[in-house]
Amino acid sequence: MAKLLPTGCCAPRLQARLSSEDAQAFGAQLGLLGHPIRLQILDLLAQHEEPVCVCDLEAALPVKQPTVSHHLRLLREAGLIDCERRGLWAYYTVRCEALAALRARIVAHLDALL
Amino acid sequence: MAKLLPTGCCAPRLQARLSSEDAQAFGAQLGLLGHPIRLQILDLLAQHEEPVCVCDLEAALPVKQPTVSHHLRLLREAGLIDCERRGLWAYYTVRCEALAALRARIVAHLDALL
Repeated sequence: MAKLLPTGCCAPRLQARLSSEDAQAFGAQLGLLGHPIRLQILDLLAQHEEPVCVCDLEAALPVKQPTVSHHLRLLREAGLIDCERRGLWAYYTVRCEALAALRARIVAHLDALL
Repeated sequence: MAKLLPTGCCAPRLQARLSSEDAQAFGAQLGLLGHPIRLQILDLLAQHEEPVCVCDLEAALPVKQPTVSHHLRLLREAGLIDCERRGLWAYYTVRCEALAALRARIVAHLDALL
């Protein structure tokens, strides 16, 4: 009996507008952005036009160096930050054009929901 | 020796503008939004002004009923959707004002990075 109920309970079947693949890709972008340490790294880098030394990031963040390195690597792989080596040190900058593209994607997605 | 290097390698120490608590809270909001199934649920609900029956959500999503229920509960707890009971069935709607507030928070945050 219960098995028959769904077909008659309500309006026509829903069509997914957002494919599973798109939802996976967009969810991964939001998840990449949405980690507290990565949010703090981006915020620290965005305060400086000049590249920021990894040692200053490590000093400013509430986690240890390997954790900072891990999150820096994920941000680099996602294309949200750039890295350059200067001698012993790595210096990081935000990639504004990549952040702007992510902002545009998030805004377009949320606007479509409203 | 290596321990002495950070103090002299670069510019003045960074000040965290985003507190750990704010980063945690904002990261949790992004993470809540950024799950593929939750993105698809919000997208399905946003296509309809009328409340959508849970059975139609379950039919449209690529996961089983307990998983749909789990994500619906998380979205409700986050205040992003509303639920009303009609007899045997639960009907869901997006809470546009909550999504608009989340959109505004994300935009303000990303604008501060650019």
